Amino acid sequence: MGILRQPDGMRALSRQWWREGRTLGLVPTMGNLHEGHLSLMRSAVAECDEAVASIYVNPLQFGAGEDFDGYPRTWEADLATLAEAGVATVFAPTDAVMYPPGFATSVEVAGLTDGLCARSRPGHFRGVTTVVMKLLCVVLPHRAYFGEKDYQQLAVIRRMTDDLGLGVQIVPMPTWREPSGLAMSSRNGYLSDDERARAVVLSRAIAAAQSVAAETDQAAAILAAANEVLAAEPLARVDYVELVDAETLEPLERVERPARLCLAVHIGPARLIDNGPVLPPGSPLPLGEG
Amino acid sequence: MGILRQPDGMRALSRQWWREGRTLGLVPTMGNLHEGHLSLMRSAVAECDEAVASIYVNPLQFGAGEDFDGYPRTWEADLATLAEAGVATVFAPTDAVMYPPGFATSVEVAGLTDGLCARSRPGHFRGVTTVVMKLLCVVLPHRAYFGEKDYQQLAVIRRMTDDLGLGVQIVPMPTWREPSGLAMSSRNGYLSDDERARAVVLSRAIAAAQSVAAETDQAAAILAAANEVLAAEPLARVDYVELVDAETLEPLERVERPARLCLAVHIGPARLIDNGPVLPPGSPLPLGEG
Repeated sequence: MGILRQPDGMRALSRQWWREGRTLGLVPTMGNLHEGHLSLMRSAVAECDEAVASIYVNPLQFGAGEDFDGYPRTWEADLATLAEAGVATVFAPTDAVMYPPGFATSVEVAGLTDGLCARSRPGHFRGVTTVVMKLLCVVLPHRAYFGEKDYQQLAVIRRMTDDLGLGVQIVPMPTWREPSGLAMSSRNGYLSDDERARAVVLSRAIAAAQSVAAETDQAAAILAAANEVLAAEPLARVDYVELVDAETLEPLERVERPARLCLAVHIGPARLIDNGPVLPPGSPLPLGEG
Repeated sequence: MGILRQPDGMRALSRQWWREGRTLGLVPTMGNLHEGHLSLMRSAVAECDEAVASIYVNPLQFGAGEDFDGYPRTWEADLATLAEAGVATVFAPTDAVMYPPGFATSVEVAGLTDGLCARSRPGHFRGVTTVVMKLLCVVLPHRAYFGEKDYQQLAVIRRMTDDLGLGVQIVPMPTWREPSGLAMSSRNGYLSDDERARAVVLSRAIAAAQSVAAETDQAAAILAAANEVLAAEPLARVDYVELVDAETLEPLERVERPARLCLAVHIGPARLIDNGPVLPPGSPLPLGEG
């Protein structure tokens, strides 16, 4: 496996692939890889001539008091996972080369970063867009893979790449779930067994909302169904539950076009997020979602 | 000459050149091309396999009350100039494709955009960095050419491209001057013959400052020499005259490393800028500067 630590080296390899007419896929990660990441890796390997995984715990997207220092770093296990997925190239830069002294540039997307997670994580999305733009500039992939679990992030990155015209195709990948319904997340590792069992309340709240949405287009009723499920779980401390337009992320009163139910809930030491599609009543549910 | 109006078409051509192993040079302009632009074009043609000129009057970098509407658009003459310089490809997008509905992304460089022109042109540099980043993403040149006349812009763009890792070489080109010393600028077109003759006061102020700097490293004395020249010209209304570090653009009290004298002066209807190198006393002046 080729492991590159320097943007210059990664860029030289990428540009060589371009000259050879090879297509590149990038899966940006913060490491601590799980089945959800693996599904992205497998798609990149299947769909591109060269699949690159980046592993970088980006300090810019963690706020004060967030879990940057404690974020799980599992380098050896991650390499084994990447090898299993058939990824041959890893870009794993250090802070010193990503943000050298004097670094002063930021990339920001307005609007989409006003609500949802942005309210409790000021500056988070600016950190995400800045690091993702740099990764995209260095690797210059034809396709970049992002999980729908971070739905707002996906929308923000799609907006950014469309706006700046880099020509990369942003490929959304369905949320990978445990058999219980719990969305795979590195932050699940912060949970005790009991908390992990209770964390299934997020996906149950989404399912309840989707069930009501099959009968009504009223956001109030749909949200009430989700909140009722969450209220019954004493360990759940809700950050937000919102029903938003699937593209603009603006809150909806009625579901007249594709929407998304998004929520963030604290369970014990972890802040967990999840989301699911909500379609106008009578719509056929897309294959593979739900 | 190939004229491309769509980012998609420009990008497809650029990526084809990459696959063919051809090097690309980009000269971003707002049109109204003069000798200064021509010198950039000639360098791009000489140094790269493919030279692309972009012509786009970027609304984002004009503030309220600035000259966006009146900025000279001279399309036919510009094409003739480009043909004369041997530029075979022009990227001339419209506002509708550069900033389509929903466009929400901005690129910003902190620090370097605090002083000098930023004080009287809030938001200007964010407009510049956003459009230049988009042009660079679409065209993906190996080299991009910028004139030293816009010295702060050059420093900001170099910082941005270094920070985001696109791997483009930013090539600075010396300011092109009329025989009188007046720096070439589209905004010189706003001047009457009398005002144009008086506008030479900017380059004379720089020369006076450089002359004093040969004898002393004290910024106060160097700036006084420039201000004395400007004060003698009744039509000159000074926006700023500053002596700054040549890289960080921070104001200096003593010239102990390469510095830059930068100034912005209103002459009649035009706000003109100029700048020149100031070196520690006893330094040999670099060839071609002064």
